[in-house]
Amino acid sequence: MDSRKNGDGLLERTLRRFRRAWRGTNYGSPQTHFSLELSAGDIKQLRRQIDACLEARGGEVSARARAAHLGEAYLELNLQGRQRFLEVLAQDYGVDQEKLEASIAHYQNATDAKAQRAAESALRASLMAPRIRLLSLFNALDDGIKFLVDLRAELRHFARSDPELTTLDDELSAKLASWFDIGFLELQQITWDSPATLLEKLIEYEAVHAIDSWENLKKRLDSDRRLYAFFHPNMPDEPLIFVEVALVNGLADNVQHLLDGEAPTLEAEAADTAIFYSISNCQPGLAGISFGNTLIKRVARDLARDLPQLKNFATLSPLPGFRKWLDGQTNETLDPLIGTSDGIRLREQAGATDTVDALRTLLAKGDWPRDGATAKALEATIMPLATHYLINERGRAGAKDRVAHFHLSNGARIECINWLADTSERGLKTGAGLMINYRYVLKYVEENHEAYCSNGKITATSAVRKLLRG
Amino acid sequence: MDSRKNGDGLLERTLRRFRRAWRGTNYGSPQTHFSLELSAGDIKQLRRQIDACLEARGGEVSARARAAHLGEAYLELNLQGRQRFLEVLAQDYGVDQEKLEASIAHYQNATDAKAQRAAESALRASLMAPRIRLLSLFNALDDGIKFLVDLRAELRHFARSDPELTTLDDELSAKLASWFDIGFLELQQITWDSPATLLEKLIEYEAVHAIDSWENLKKRLDSDRRLYAFFHPNMPDEPLIFVEVALVNGLADNVQHLLDGEAPTLEAEAADTAIFYSISNCQPGLAGISFGNTLIKRVARDLARDLPQLKNFATLSPLPGFRKWLDGQTNETLDPLIGTSDGIRLREQAGATDTVDALRTLLAKGDWPRDGATAKALEATIMPLATHYLINERGRAGAKDRVAHFHLSNGARIECINWLADTSERGLKTGAGLMINYRYVLKYVEENHEAYCSNGKITATSAVRKLLRG
Amino acid sequence: MDSRKNGDGLLERTLRRFRRAWRGTNYGSPQTHFSLELSAGDIKQLRRQIDACLEARGGEVSARARAAHLGEAYLELNLQGRQRFLEVLAQDYGVDQEKLEASIAHYQNATDAKAQRAAESALRASLMAPRIRLLSLFNALDDGIKFLVDLRAELRHFARSDPELTTLDDELSAKLASWFDIGFLELQQITWDSPATLLEKLIEYEAVHAIDSWENLKKRLDSDRRLYAFFHPNMPDEPLIFVEVALVNGLADNVQHLLDGEAPTLEAEAADTAIFYSISNCQPGLAGISFGNTLIKRVARDLARDLPQLKNFATLSPLPGFRKWLDGQTNETLDPLIGTSDGIRLREQAGATDTVDALRTLLAKGDWPRDGATAKALEATIMPLATHYLINERGRAGAKDRVAHFHLSNGARIECINWLADTSERGLKTGAGLMINYRYVLKYVEENHEAYCSNGKITATSAVRKLLRG
Amino acid sequence: MDSRKNGDGLLERTLRRFRRAWRGTNYGSPQTHFSLELSAGDIKQLRRQIDACLEARGGEVSARARAAHLGEAYLELNLQGRQRFLEVLAQDYGVDQEKLEASIAHYQNATDAKAQRAAESALRASLMAPRIRLLSLFNALDDGIKFLVDLRAELRHFARSDPELTTLDDELSAKLASWFDIGFLELQQITWDSPATLLEKLIEYEAVHAIDSWENLKKRLDSDRRLYAFFHPNMPDEPLIFVEVALVNGLADNVQHLLDGEAPTLEAEAADTAIFYSISNCQPGLAGISFGNTLIKRVARDLARDLPQLKNFATLSPLPGFRKWLDGQTNETLDPLIGTSDGIRLREQAGATDTVDALRTLLAKGDWPRDGATAKALEATIMPLATHYLINERGRAGAKDRVAHFHLSNGARIECINWLADTSERGLKTGAGLMINYRYVLKYVEENHEAYCSNGKITATSAVRKLLRG
Repeated sequence: MDSRKNGDGLLERTLRRFRRAWRGTNYGSPQTHFSLELSAGDIKQLRRQIDACLEARGGEVSARARAAHLGEAYLELNLQGRQRFLEVLAQDYGVDQEKLEASIAHYQNATDAKAQRAAESALRASLMAPRIRLLSLFNALDDGIKFLVDLRAELRHFARSDPELTTLDDELSAKLASWFDIGFLELQQITWDSPATLLEKLIEYEAVHAIDSWENLKKRLDSDRRLYAFFHPNMPDEPLIFVEVALVNGLADNVQHLLDGEAPTLEAEAADTAIFYSISNCQPGLAGISFGNTLIKRVARDLARDLPQLKNFATLSPLPGFRKWLDGQTNETLDPLIGTSDGIRLREQAGATDTVDALRTLLAKGDWPRDGATAKALEATIMPLATHYLINERGRAGAKDRVAHFHLSNGARIECINWLADTSERGLKTGAGLMINYRYVLKYVEENHEAYCSNGKITATSAVRKLLRG
Repeated sequence: MDSRKNGDGLLERTLRRFRRAWRGTNYGSPQTHFSLELSAGDIKQLRRQIDACLEARGGEVSARARAAHLGEAYLELNLQGRQRFLEVLAQDYGVDQEKLEASIAHYQNATDAKAQRAAESALRASLMAPRIRLLSLFNALDDGIKFLVDLRAELRHFARSDPELTTLDDELSAKLASWFDIGFLELQQITWDSPATLLEKLIEYEAVHAIDSWENLKKRLDSDRRLYAFFHPNMPDEPLIFVEVALVNGLADNVQHLLDGEAPTLEAEAADTAIFYSISNCQPGLAGISFGNTLIKRVARDLARDLPQLKNFATLSPLPGFRKWLDGQTNETLDPLIGTSDGIRLREQAGATDTVDALRTLLAKGDWPRDGATAKALEATIMPLATHYLINERGRAGAKDRVAHFHLSNGARIECINWLADTSERGLKTGAGLMINYRYVLKYVEENHEAYCSNGKITATSAVRKLLRG
Repeated sequence: MDSRKNGDGLLERTLRRFRRAWRGTNYGSPQTHFSLELSAGDIKQLRRQIDACLEARGGEVSARARAAHLGEAYLELNLQGRQRFLEVLAQDYGVDQEKLEASIAHYQNATDAKAQRAAESALRASLMAPRIRLLSLFNALDDGIKFLVDLRAELRHFARSDPELTTLDDELSAKLASWFDIGFLELQQITWDSPATLLEKLIEYEAVHAIDSWENLKKRLDSDRRLYAFFHPNMPDEPLIFVEVALVNGLADNVQHLLDGEAPTLEAEAADTAIFYSISNCQPGLAGISFGNTLIKRVARDLARDLPQLKNFATLSPLPGFRKWLDGQTNETLDPLIGTSDGIRLREQAGATDTVDALRTLLAKGDWPRDGATAKALEATIMPLATHYLINERGRAGAKDRVAHFHLSNGARIECINWLADTSERGLKTGAGLMINYRYVLKYVEENHEAYCSNGKITATSAVRKLLRG
Repeated sequence: MDSRKNGDGLLERTLRRFRRAWRGTNYGSPQTHFSLELSAGDIKQLRRQIDACLEARGGEVSARARAAHLGEAYLELNLQGRQRFLEVLAQDYGVDQEKLEASIAHYQNATDAKAQRAAESALRASLMAPRIRLLSLFNALDDGIKFLVDLRAELRHFARSDPELTTLDDELSAKLASWFDIGFLELQQITWDSPATLLEKLIEYEAVHAIDSWENLKKRLDSDRRLYAFFHPNMPDEPLIFVEVALVNGLADNVQHLLDGEAPTLEAEAADTAIFYSISNCQPGLAGISFGNTLIKRVARDLARDLPQLKNFATLSPLPGFRKWLDGQTNETLDPLIGTSDGIRLREQAGATDTVDALRTLLAKGDWPRDGATAKALEATIMPLATHYLINERGRAGAKDRVAHFHLSNGARIECINWLADTSERGLKTGAGLMINYRYVLKYVEENHEAYCSNGKITATSAVRKLLRG
């Protein structure tokens, strides 16, 4: 198992800061050292420590010191030991079922409104698992919130193969969601004047279009670019999510042009369009807690205030599920979606007898975007197919494509489908080189959102709809 | 009803800031104006707005805008209207009892561990009242947290005569307790270099020894004084609680000397003792959420770091319940607690035939502290009585005196009982002029705390114990 | 002699900060203590120390430590001692006349351009007095700049009766002028959020309309007021000059209304006019170094940027020299300046036979502004006289009135003369209750300035000119 | 001519910031555009503009706007044009010789002390060249100080071949020296938390041991490193000089080890020695204005305060003039300085008949440091020669080696001469691979400084002196 991928690397870094932060804390009791993988004997001792911490004999300050103690012990374990540690929490420190049943009986037997109100409160209290009280103590420790976030990244990893950990993950996730409520987050613009400590994290966390050097990063913070991130006050050095914006004229239709380090810089005051071209979540431990919707709207609002001449706010987004969907189709499903003559031309160009085969053949050529005839034949068939995929194909929650679903549920509309817009290997492999402009027209955002969420209606420009065939 | 006393004044101030903060927000729908006292027709309309907000048709950003709308409507009501508004929340937006019962049934019928885990989660979710979801939206609004805190101050006022509001208060209190967890608070030292905006709030909030002018405040921020407060990041201009400290030599035994504006200033580096002489809670809407324990310990830690020569950390505290207790005693309970000859002298001095009468007579003289013979006779009997009151009298939770209970449960010990230590009218009337030094010896704090909390043991110096008679 | 008035008090305050700042500096030699009044023997020792400091044997860091040493010695002297100290500088550490004469000879004998350039440089160097090198060392000491500024305030005081000190004052003034060049100053807005340390200095330094309480100060920092000050980076806690601005509708014509603590507050965004109603210099030691011109223009620029709806920028200024001028006039000079019938009415009202006597009689009544007939008679004669005084009377540099000269040389124009505009005792006594609006119209400021400075032309509105008689 | 090397590049960058800063300034008159190389006609126009600026008809604010105008015109010229521009200043705007001669006559004819004092002041005033008044106006413009600093870098370049510009350079240098007095500078620690804008300047300005990547820079800001720089408040983004410090145990004796990116990081609290291993001046336009002396002492003081366990403060410095000196020696001068047997061994090892030839032969081998026998033979002769060079050879001002002179005049002593301490190509070529520890013992710094500056005495440890032969 690659520990870096699973969040372990995060914790190693946290460990150092953690120890520095907690060094010299008087724990009131000597630190116990466990074996790396947490032996059966260690587990007994661990329970005693958890119990002491929860009984809080020594008052709140003491309880938090004991929590720090446990946190350090956790960090010193190897992966197997950590999994065992979490299993102890999952098995022994959940809701007390007897108490819960008693509370339920009490509630069911309440005879008047007042008694019922009291019973309801008691029932709620009995559903608060001790393990969550324990983990909550960490938020008063330096770097304690980051510890919990990184711990959840590990927990999620373990939970994939260990369903008993799922409830613990649900509870921790709910706790973190409450702490990371949008109201507590700060939106910050990040510039080339920001601390290098922070900038190097952008390089690390950028998940869409990798930043390959400090020069590249500088270009993305140039005067015609903007970069905004959300931060939590207890994790001031750690972005939660960030978005990269290019200020351009007209909707950008090609991401390689946008990322070209040699491209001339535009005057920000001369731009009419803000293109959101990359959004990256930074904390795997906050998976499932969504910030992107609010981030885009707040950034759009700030940009509109600072640069009042901006007329358009749109993304340049990938279409990550398209090729996978396309590869799963048959001639029966595809042929009605493409024009007859376009289909014929495609098959001729491929020297193939059916559409599925033709598409497979042509798309398999590594350099098809630079082969004029092939590209032309593909464009004529793929554009209507992609439009169909975007507008008509549905998944569980709405649009089949997850990026499309994200922006449509935010209230954006499909503005433009761009051919040969991302010719990187990944762009061709997942999206056939297509990229989409989702446009946020502030006064229609609510209406679009509601139409999509209530009735599944997808808003697209007529130019896009015209691409449909059949 | 004096609305200022009941938190209403707080909200009026909030209203102005609130409106400034939210002005220009596009609520998506026109603002409704209710009649001042919220008529029956208004209530119908109010319910529609609350429903729209909770259904969150327009997405999170829109839900928050609607919440702002409701907040502004609330602020424009008079007290009667506000009470009705809160009653609507209390009656119509609590936990859905049918759903709750269904969740209970589901839980009771779960057959395996996995189903039980899922049912437990569902049960927890069904206990989340819609009104709390509604109020939670406010934390993402500028000044929204302060709005909720002030709203709770009003809610507590109404709840005294309206028990239906109690559950709503409990729920809101729990929500605020989670948001105001110690881990999210910042300890700040306040000095004469702090903004006047903040300093004037100290004058307003000081609840123990009133600050009567800016000159008086400046003296309390002089080089031999310290003042620390806790703040929440979303209420950066509002202290939650603050403590005032005097740096002195030896335990301070008289609060008038401490507050004397003409007293010479000591070099901070020459002091051996830090006296915590005043702690004030600033937010009535956070009643029941305790910060004092942590505040004292953090300040002691910071002081010990900055001024390593400090040897003692102690309070100079009132004994607010003593006179009330004393007035409730009989000759039968008092006489065994005082020395025989001291009792005789007291009665002679008063020209009274019994102890109760003698005490009443002498303490009724307004200027007894300046009448040598009376003061002497009183000292001989009152010191043992006060010691008995402090050490032997018990209330529900521990020591009968609430200030004593607070410091003892924090792990302090009773170090010294000071005679003629607060000769202000209030000091004489509530505590017979006595003040107590509770001392925090860092290495015994945990032990004292545990002995007090587990076994009710009160720690006092032998010098204090020797004052007991009989 | 009142030492406070003469700047001595400033230095006492500096002394404490100074000692704190320099305490623990290793001077390399023991501190010498002089007698308070600096005896003849002390002077010998003082010269040795100054010589050591100037020879800078110990390198620059050491030279500065020795300067600190001398500064502390100075601060410990009484006024007589300090005067002697400065006389030593004036007499013994000026330009070396022999060297200067040699440099002159050298210059006069230079035969080619290159030699002449070198001789010019040498001549310049020989005019640099050692005492200025000595004082310059202070700017690298904490609070050293403030020390020099306060020292100059004392020096100016002594120089009034001791002309030998004048050259030293000139040299120090030139040095300070170079350090306090506008380019190094920072314009800061001061608000109720500013540190109390700073705000209490405004109360102390306000020289035009006294601030009598913190409540009064708060009113002057309300949302329809602005207060700006210049600061020097090496004296960050000390304003150099500040200006108070009221945001109003229409030109303010009465200063008591403006300062009225009970007046309602206007929305800043609704105001069309910014009235500069008070400018105070804060540092007597910077006398002769002018900041007011730039301050007004920068503040006007900032206000125009922040509140684009502002249309007028004007002062509400006193006419401090008017009564003094008026009292020096004769019937022969006055009568031609007032209308015949107005003159008759005035004399009748006063029961006097000539104008001088009539004016004296009526203005002597303490409450004439509240006596309708008297006020009316005075208005008819005084308005033309004041207009004449403002526009036609000249002093050495331009307009006779010093406040008028200041604003006219800044490029303002006389917009309005306001009757009964300052009815305070001082206002009546110096300016007969009149106040002037000088208006800054940004696009004419240069033109007005040039017309006034080159040709003595005073710009006034036709409404003002129409007030002239005869 | 390579314009980058000569400061021109600096100005190009300044130009962009300058224009941004000044854009929209209302200059009162349209901007004139000159031909790139400033034609004769342009020069006439230029003089008119300079005259207008100096006459300051439009008041100070207007004068500064005109100066901005001139600055922008300067920046738009090519190098030839700029030189002509500066020549105009040098020829036409220097001291007015007639006025100067009149002032001299006046001074020579003064008959009493008072007249003499006045004449002296007038003489001083007549030596103030108009061009310096003109350039002084720039300090009130955004980025104006940086403009002057960069302009001086160009001026110095032109002055090498154009002696008429020398006086202008002297005057500007004096002005800058007054503005950049140590007292106005701020010492800042630079860390990996500093803005990237600033950090990239360190990479650019490092003049001793090049920083070749951001990773390399990060290593130099690691927890066992410190980097401090001086800044001027009007150039907050531009370091003036910076020093790099390594925290180590014992005196560092090899710079490659110190710069090794793979070396483990030490706990700062465990180090006993601070090694100053690189000092770089950043502004060519401030040549001749010295900051290094103060910088080292202030940094040593700050380090001693923050890390009280530090015992030694020393440099690891090159010996840049050694090889040049050695190459100029003869057998007659060298042989007495080396041991007889060491000389024989050296010549044998080289197969040479005399010392000069032997040294030349052996040092010419590129890889001699890695050839044991050669290195050994060289060490035995070069160590005494280097010691002799350091201690006994003198230049104009003191020690012949310029780095040695710098540290000795600061009061450091020669602590250690390190063999094979810098084996980079440059280190071998200029200093035969030697590096020197100059140690700053704070309590002897003054004494050493004085002994060196007054008597030329060089302080060295006995271990170093023992290396001398003969």
